Amino acid sequence: MVSNRKVSALERKKEVLENLKRFGAEIYKQMMLGRFPQIQMPSRSIENIYYNPELRQYVLGNKTVRRSARNIRHIRPFTQLVWAAYFAYELTSQRKTSTLRDVYYSSQAYEVPFKDQPESNSIITDLETVIGFSREDFNIFPEERSAVFGDLTIEYTVPGYEGKRLNLTSHPDGVMIGPALTSAEFVKTSADKVIAIEKGGLFTRFIEERVHEKFNAILVLTAGQAPRATRHFIHRLNKELELPVYIFTDGDPWGMHIAMVIISGSANAAHLRELTTPDAKWSGVWATDIVDYKLPTDPLTEIDIKRLYELQRDPRYKDKLWQREIKTFLKIRRKAEQEAFSRYGLTYIVDEYLPAKLEET
Amino acid sequence: MVSNRKVSALERKKEVLENLKRFGAEIYKQMMLGRFPQIQMPSRSIENIYYNPELRQYVLGNKTVRRSARNIRHIRPFTQLVWAAYFAYELTSQRKTSTLRDVYYSSQAYEVPFKDQPESNSIITDLETVIGFSREDFNIFPEERSAVFGDLTIEYTVPGYEGKRLNLTSHPDGVMIGPALTSAEFVKTSADKVIAIEKGGLFTRFIEERVHEKFNAILVLTAGQAPRATRHFIHRLNKELELPVYIFTDGDPWGMHIAMVIISGSANAAHLRELTTPDAKWSGVWATDIVDYKLPTDPLTEIDIKRLYELQRDPRYKDKLWQREIKTFLKIRRKAEQEAFSRYGLTYIVDEYLPAKLEET
Repeated sequence: MVSNRKVSALERKKEVLENLKRFGAEIYKQMMLGRFPQIQMPSRSIENIYYNPELRQYVLGNKTVRRSARNIRHIRPFTQLVWAAYFAYELTSQRKTSTLRDVYYSSQAYEVPFKDQPESNSIITDLETVIGFSREDFNIFPEERSAVFGDLTIEYTVPGYEGKRLNLTSHPDGVMIGPALTSAEFVKTSADKVIAIEKGGLFTRFIEERVHEKFNAILVLTAGQAPRATRHFIHRLNKELELPVYIFTDGDPWGMHIAMVIISGSANAAHLRELTTPDAKWSGVWATDIVDYKLPTDPLTEIDIKRLYELQRDPRYKDKLWQREIKTFLKIRRKAEQEAFSRYGLTYIVDEYLPAKLEET
Repeated sequence: MVSNRKVSALERKKEVLENLKRFGAEIYKQMMLGRFPQIQMPSRSIENIYYNPELRQYVLGNKTVRRSARNIRHIRPFTQLVWAAYFAYELTSQRKTSTLRDVYYSSQAYEVPFKDQPESNSIITDLETVIGFSREDFNIFPEERSAVFGDLTIEYTVPGYEGKRLNLTSHPDGVMIGPALTSAEFVKTSADKVIAIEKGGLFTRFIEERVHEKFNAILVLTAGQAPRATRHFIHRLNKELELPVYIFTDGDPWGMHIAMVIISGSANAAHLRELTTPDAKWSGVWATDIVDYKLPTDPLTEIDIKRLYELQRDPRYKDKLWQREIKTFLKIRRKAEQEAFSRYGLTYIVDEYLPAKLEET
């Protein structure tokens, strides 16, 4: 299977740079005309975030906000946003990456004050909204890293590695999903599916039991809640290589939500489209699996139960499967970890459970 | 530089298996002689843990404990330990890996009851004490994963990869430190030092700024507190390749302690010798760096301060450098993150701070 990516990584970077430039040029133009510069962008306030059942993710509505240098209360966030665009342009054109934390401290080098990191984070999200790309596209990456293993050959685009290729089975502990992998082209794969796994121990078990060969799968470790770069990587595997995605998590509300955020994203990222994989499936551990497989369990805590009631009302969880599983959790009042299958022997999860669930979902 | 490892990975596994077998044979022999089987092992109680200034780590004293099948209160832990040895033998001889969590659930497949995971964890630590190897040697790995990048060629010993080699610059986001890397042989390196880094963002910055080339360094990401497999890997880089190790953490008591655990280990692992690197250096961020470099800071919290007083009394922290830094923290009442250097531009930490600190420590 060869990638059907429409836009190469380099073309994409070019587009990001052009959008950033256009943003600057627009402000410059206004000033040259003797006007107070202003910008308009979609509002990210809660009243403007809607769940879109067709896209199966949150989106922004039509409300916009305007920030004008004429308004004294706007001057601060306006200046910060312009600086952030400048900084993003520098990063992207110099092909350096950064983190949200770095951005916060870097601003001090330019004497652009942010009172704390939440303020600088929020400005970076504004910049995503304005230029229509996620921050990873302008080289601001999360601190967290997760990993991947499987038959996929990639070609790097980062400095020093241009044109170099790596097959992602090269290292049997998995390779990290960072800026280099995120910006790599997909060259070739024999895989016909993606299996995302919450926990490191099970990721290693799957590699040892050759799940990648037996099930033709690319294995992705989410390491708990998947970092954004990992969600984008899963999105790309699904879109560019047309691979179905199956997600395996612990059997509790937190595991469900790890799967859901990969599938339908979060309200915080309602302004972005490339972090979700709506056709991905949550394959387990379901509450009904706990019953069917007689798994060792722990009781649900108060916090677990409160969380389940929240999920029950969440529009992303309206489908039958999710509602049934939430109800079952609330009925049995128990939860189970992925490792609980080891009660039937270490390889049971691969020999019995995994094929059954891939068939079922 | 070629590795001066004394024992190959395969010989080491053989030794582990022999020790496990000897443990079983000893019990079997006692029963054949018509005796209640018993075992004797070093006590791991607090009164038997001492700091050894020569080894610069905690060690166990001479007190031993005896567990006898004759004593009704001993039968449970005795049986659990024998089962754990059996399970470890199965894992190691079948070349499968596992986690502490898997061990807990697996015991249910054998109807060996553990009331909870702390109980099974404690039995695994007993087994380490009895057979003189760490649990990673009998294939029980931590859940957490960290990463490495740099010019080191390794040769795998895990099934399916025997004899295959990988250079650890192959993937510019870094490769995971898991069972395969841990059990690999070191073949060749041009590096003359190891730099361990607490945070993912800085690890990526160092790779992008080619610290591995400019400073001939192997870069290790600890991702917070270094997992045991990573501490063992650093130990091996230091012992087998004779590479000096420099550790960079946040400038706060928690960062200090990340460095200290790599250097001198923890009291919990007083029965093991291969998780520490006593000659490794904590190179920063020091409290005195915060002052000298005028870094942006946050105030120390109550918990930070309490922790500093604990460290001040800890025998591992008795050296001048540590005492001076603890005092300075307590005096300035501020802490700083590694990213704080970005106030002088993104590359300042690599261009100015890193060379200065490598010289100084």
